[in-house]
Amino acid sequence: MSAPDLPVSEPSPDFAADVFERACPSRDVVHTITGRWGLLALLALNEGPYRFGALRRRVDGVSERMLAQSLQALERSGFVHREVLEAIPPKVEYSLTARGEQVAADLMSLVHLVESQMPDILADQAEYDRGR
Amino acid sequence: MSAPDLPVSEPSPDFAADVFERACPSRDVVHTITGRWGLLALLALNEGPYRFGALRRRVDGVSERMLAQSLQALERSGFVHREVLEAIPPKVEYSLTARGEQVAADLMSLVHLVESQMPDILADQAEYDRGR
Repeated sequence: MSAPDLPVSEPSPDFAADVFERACPSRDVVHTITGRWGLLALLALNEGPYRFGALRRRVDGVSERMLAQSLQALERSGFVHREVLEAIPPKVEYSLTARGEQVAADLMSLVHLVESQMPDILADQAEYDRGR
Repeated sequence: MSAPDLPVSEPSPDFAADVFERACPSRDVVHTITGRWGLLALLALNEGPYRFGALRRRVDGVSERMLAQSLQALERSGFVHREVLEAIPPKVEYSLTARGEQVAADLMSLVHLVESQMPDILADQAEYDRGR
């Protein structure tokens, strides 16, 4: 966000997001997609659409309340699409939007990197703990 | 992790990390690099080495305690290198390890994606809030 007192030599965009700025709303959005349950929900939905109950089973350990909150935040920022399917009782299905697919690709890359290096990471952790 | 009671038909690896498994240690490692302050510390260190005070100024809004905790967790899992430089008073410098550089690249991609789409994301958020 521009400092209002400085002269502007050329037209500046209305809004330049910077996650390093404390008040920038991009920080909360990043937190929405990288938070403990939001991240796992995005990775699960990258496998395909899920209904709530099945998604909760896939994201092992999440409470109903935390998953609902995470999905609501992801939907609000346009990463997840929520669709009510006509049925008795009504069924709700969650899927990734195009934006959700983009961030899921980066998250997959990150998680695969960690998963593939876990033996080395665990060895590093053990060495760190011995040295303390 | 294998179920001890089941017969094993072929040699299995000692450890196959799966972030979807509640008890898998990869989950905590992912949280270490994607947590609110760990993520920003990695992004900052991707710009180059930092001393503690300068890093704290770069990661706008972090407390001394939270930054110290985040750096310790990142160091323990081998993402960040902590070096004590001989000086009076001693100076401590933080930098990324090769593993830290790898994850920082994915995090940069993720954050740039969010930053570049913030105008659309803010518009989606406003529309969502109007519809509630």
